[in-house]
Amino acid sequence: MQKSELYKLMGIKLDLAVEAHEILRGEVGREIPGVKMDEERYENAVVKTITILDEQGAQIMGRAPGTYVTLESREIRDNNKMVHKQIGEILANKLKEILPLREDSTVLIVGLGNWNATPDALGPKVVELSMATRHLFHYAPEELRQGLRSVCVLAPGVLGLTGIETAEIIKGTVDRVQPDLVICIDALAAGSVERINSSLQVATTGINPGSGVGNKRIGINQETMGVPVVAIGVPTVVHAGIIAHQAMEKLFNHLQTTPALQDVYHALRPVAVNEMINDVLEPFGGQLMVTPKEIDEQISNTARIIAMALAMALHPGMPEDEVEHYLH
Amino acid sequence: MQKSELYKLMGIKLDLAVEAHEILRGEVGREIPGVKMDEERYENAVVKTITILDEQGAQIMGRAPGTYVTLESREIRDNNKMVHKQIGEILANKLKEILPLREDSTVLIVGLGNWNATPDALGPKVVELSMATRHLFHYAPEELRQGLRSVCVLAPGVLGLTGIETAEIIKGTVDRVQPDLVICIDALAAGSVERINSSLQVATTGINPGSGVGNKRIGINQETMGVPVVAIGVPTVVHAGIIAHQAMEKLFNHLQTTPALQDVYHALRPVAVNEMINDVLEPFGGQLMVTPKEIDEQISNTARIIAMALAMALHPGMPEDEVEHYLH
Amino acid sequence: MQKSELYKLMGIKLDLAVEAHEILRGEVGREIPGVKMDEERYENAVVKTITILDEQGAQIMGRAPGTYVTLESREIRDNNKMVHKQIGEILANKLKEILPLREDSTVLIVGLGNWNATPDALGPKVVELSMATRHLFHYAPEELRQGLRSVCVLAPGVLGLTGIETAEIIKGTVDRVQPDLVICIDALAAGSVERINSSLQVATTGINPGSGVGNKRIGINQETMGVPVVAIGVPTVVHAGIIAHQAMEKLFNHLQTTPALQDVYHALRPVAVNEMINDVLEPFGGQLMVTPKEIDEQISNTARIIAMALAMALHPGMPEDEVEHYLH
Amino acid sequence: MQKSELYKLMGIKLDLAVEAHEILRGEVGREIPGVKMDEERYENAVVKTITILDEQGAQIMGRAPGTYVTLESREIRDNNKMVHKQIGEILANKLKEILPLREDSTVLIVGLGNWNATPDALGPKVVELSMATRHLFHYAPEELRQGLRSVCVLAPGVLGLTGIETAEIIKGTVDRVQPDLVICIDALAAGSVERINSSLQVATTGINPGSGVGNKRIGINQETMGVPVVAIGVPTVVHAGIIAHQAMEKLFNHLQTTPALQDVYHALRPVAVNEMINDVLEPFGGQLMVTPKEIDEQISNTARIIAMALAMALHPGMPEDEVEHYLH
Repeated sequence: MQKSELYKLMGIKLDLAVEAHEILRGEVGREIPGVKMDEERYENAVVKTITILDEQGAQIMGRAPGTYVTLESREIRDNNKMVHKQIGEILANKLKEILPLREDSTVLIVGLGNWNATPDALGPKVVELSMATRHLFHYAPEELRQGLRSVCVLAPGVLGLTGIETAEIIKGTVDRVQPDLVICIDALAAGSVERINSSLQVATTGINPGSGVGNKRIGINQETMGVPVVAIGVPTVVHAGIIAHQAMEKLFNHLQTTPALQDVYHALRPVAVNEMINDVLEPFGGQLMVTPKEIDEQISNTARIIAMALAMALHPGMPEDEVEHYLH
Repeated sequence: MQKSELYKLMGIKLDLAVEAHEILRGEVGREIPGVKMDEERYENAVVKTITILDEQGAQIMGRAPGTYVTLESREIRDNNKMVHKQIGEILANKLKEILPLREDSTVLIVGLGNWNATPDALGPKVVELSMATRHLFHYAPEELRQGLRSVCVLAPGVLGLTGIETAEIIKGTVDRVQPDLVICIDALAAGSVERINSSLQVATTGINPGSGVGNKRIGINQETMGVPVVAIGVPTVVHAGIIAHQAMEKLFNHLQTTPALQDVYHALRPVAVNEMINDVLEPFGGQLMVTPKEIDEQISNTARIIAMALAMALHPGMPEDEVEHYLH
Repeated sequence: MQKSELYKLMGIKLDLAVEAHEILRGEVGREIPGVKMDEERYENAVVKTITILDEQGAQIMGRAPGTYVTLESREIRDNNKMVHKQIGEILANKLKEILPLREDSTVLIVGLGNWNATPDALGPKVVELSMATRHLFHYAPEELRQGLRSVCVLAPGVLGLTGIETAEIIKGTVDRVQPDLVICIDALAAGSVERINSSLQVATTGINPGSGVGNKRIGINQETMGVPVVAIGVPTVVHAGIIAHQAMEKLFNHLQTTPALQDVYHALRPVAVNEMINDVLEPFGGQLMVTPKEIDEQISNTARIIAMALAMALHPGMPEDEVEHYLH
Repeated sequence: MQKSELYKLMGIKLDLAVEAHEILRGEVGREIPGVKMDEERYENAVVKTITILDEQGAQIMGRAPGTYVTLESREIRDNNKMVHKQIGEILANKLKEILPLREDSTVLIVGLGNWNATPDALGPKVVELSMATRHLFHYAPEELRQGLRSVCVLAPGVLGLTGIETAEIIKGTVDRVQPDLVICIDALAAGSVERINSSLQVATTGINPGSGVGNKRIGINQETMGVPVVAIGVPTVVHAGIIAHQAMEKLFNHLQTTPALQDVYHALRPVAVNEMINDVLEPFGGQLMVTPKEIDEQISNTARIIAMALAMALHPGMPEDEVEHYLH
């Protein structure tokens, strides 16, 4: 049975391109046409860059053409702040490569997600840590903004709290502020537990419907916003249905002693598996998330790494060893 | 010496029309042309309605033509929740009279102010307590929204936190959401200590530059937003300069035993008084606020009264004795 | 394979006595000696009372002798505030029966858990909503405290934040304040998803090591505190391992077409199942929790129900229709 | 008229020893017997150390014998994080001199004040930023705690929220945890506006009744706690009555043209002045505070300085350039 088919039935979309790529490559058994993958190794991290080159690749991968950079590091999960700073520097350097910035660009950082629900609060936390400077360019003397780029921030909340589609608030603000670039921060859902708080994804394609813990309904991307949108995301949860399915696979692998059983299992249709999983997850279904007990501390560390990286990448005059002074 | 002249020098604008009216009437010694004032008495409250009828009245009063309703009640300050509910009902009835609502109107409630600074956090608190319903009109079955009007909410933060003028975020959101009415909630600055948390003002003219604890730079009114804007405000602070001036007046009244001294005092020019006050308030000047020590509890009570009144006034099917169930 | 044995291996303790009871009765196929179970039905709720009568029952049930009342109602999960109030009243009446109160008793309400992690924040939220009155008995005039009992509140935080065992802060405070009763509020872990936010448990035995989302190390009970301790808990999470196991069981039930396979499955030892589950949950193991996406709103509703019930049960002069006025 | 007499009438106690000292020295016109004052100058700060040597000095100064170190620096108010770090280092060095620490000491940091009221939230903010390590000494492998001292933290809240005297919660916790030293952080009230957020006081005498923005009723000092208590405080407010009085003095100095008037003023008794001031501040009286509009950012900066200084002073192996990694 194909995972990609089952996940579609369960209404689960993997947010990390690198995971979608792994699964697809596993299922088709060869490289995906129209998709390129590069890898760089650092002391504490591996950076994988998946480029979706054309419409064919986009169709297979189920996501827009563009670049998806994933920084993988288990050290993100540890409480070693020195290593976190190094990871922040790697991320900053990647952002400098990716972000389409001029010296006088104005950047709008948007923290997506629900500040009241810890696993979804990554975006608002990054916003809280990030220093807004755009008003200094209008109201403050020039020496106060030397070495800084014009940055403004927004945490638009979620539909259930505001009654307004997140994308509408952002689009309205973009229309008024006219930034040159929007950077969205969002909590993501991973396809396996070991990805939680160990991967950071930067996507040049923005945010697309159904992504993230909070499941946006409207895209936040160049098409909807009218300016380039780069999305930074970190998986903080796994859908409970994925855990259930993985447990089933483990059990089956253990049991597959007889060819007869293998036949039975292979004849199992995704729709039947989906039903069993739904039975377990009732009455919440796809709304159940798996998250580590210490998610508050993890979110706080990850938000700090991203806020540091943004400060280093966006402000050309920011000395690396002082970057933490500029976090709120 | 005229208070109105001194306050102008000190950069202080009284947010309550009823206070501006009292001072002006005291100084000119007669009714203000182009301005009408009505009064209604309730068991626990007095409601004063000042109507600025024309441009002449507007000029003298230093604010736009329109209606300014002030509900005065010392009981707002006490911790009697039963009385608070009664005050909420009086406010709700006034809002029903004032708000230009159709059955199918969409209303955007905007909580102005800085959620990190207790005396300025009134608006965000009202937003937090208020239930958004607008999304139910798009996504939920009809029975879930019976008796409800379409309400959405926004707490746009302050310039220092976001780098974006508050009015820009609101205008952008208004352009996308196209509400029929905007209601802004804001913490105000009063002209005397006894007004703190004992007056609620509803103004049909919205918010104008320089108003509120957080001193907006751009107006939030029908002119800037394109739809009617009603402002609800409660004084939570008094400028420290006003306290200083009032103490001086007390002292002078005590000392004015000799005609010679009276001459000296009357010869005192506002600019000299302003200088003395600045000496006391240095280095903060107009940025110093006087606020009660228990401001957190006061704000929390007042926010609740306003949120109750809004729920009763906006949702036609809201039973009065259940209104508290609809607060978050 | 016995669930109780597997759960022990996985380090999972079911917090709800009613669930432990169901599993055990299923496994032994008859009533548990030394344990009594009663049931009452209400319009929107069922109340099950399990009484562990003696040491034999305690040993089998793996928990101390005492009374465990569970109020079950799926309506807790819905956003119907009127029904929530009714559930609050049922809980209040049960508390009045259970709590050992004299007219002049002093009660300490303790909100256990980590305020930074939404699914663990139930206790601190109840504390935030509850009105402290004990100081009125020392400092305020008598009329301010008519109809009230002396209540104080504490949210001691968690070991990871304070560096102090929760039980130590509580014991220290109990020694100074000398309350007649301690009521602990805690988020619990359930044995199945449908229990999340649909059950409220009141236990006369307090909190015992290993309970709750935050896994206390030291008990908070009459033995450690020196005064009666009643615990109120609501499941807000399920251990991810339980989901994994339930999915395996579903799959097996589906596959058990041949007697041969049944033999294989029955020969599966809990230790092997535990290993498979650990493989899925690596590297987090028992630290992974399953929780609904809307946990913030659920927690907020449940905290309100408990705070209402406490206000009604503790303050003899509290009119039921005004109880919401007394929540913060 | 003597300020010290008037302030007593107004119920105002100056929290900074250095201010009490200035006023008293002004009034008596010479050195205070039993009191010593030293001064050190740094690039961005002046450190004044007042030592109350004996009972005579204590009586005149109205505070216990001990050492009161005040670090004065207007740069605390500016948003220059590099300078803040330097100030943190000066404070850390002073703390290293003052704190009675052995290598294996356990330290309890207590954040006094109301987390809901911004000007009073300094203590809880420092606690939030500070890393607890004490549990690592019980549960974690040795390499995780190398270079660290055992630190635990507590934010006990205020009487109005908990119904429990702050000192009782602390004493109870001290009795259980048995720390070797308690460090209390508190927001203070200054005697003049220019002191707000520009002075840091370290007192070896702990906290005494009536101190701080939240006005404790019971002392938190070696006598009540049984272990040494060092208090760190920063003025975040000035009593509104002081502003009123200072304005009166300014006016009088301006008016004192005739000897007759001088006589009138000098004949003014403190009780009459107090009455005038009360008239202005009614109905809040001594409960009115003057505080800068940007108090949230100021508190956040000051809390960071103190948390950095504590991390450097308490953990012997803490590298100065990494200290910010150890703040939450």
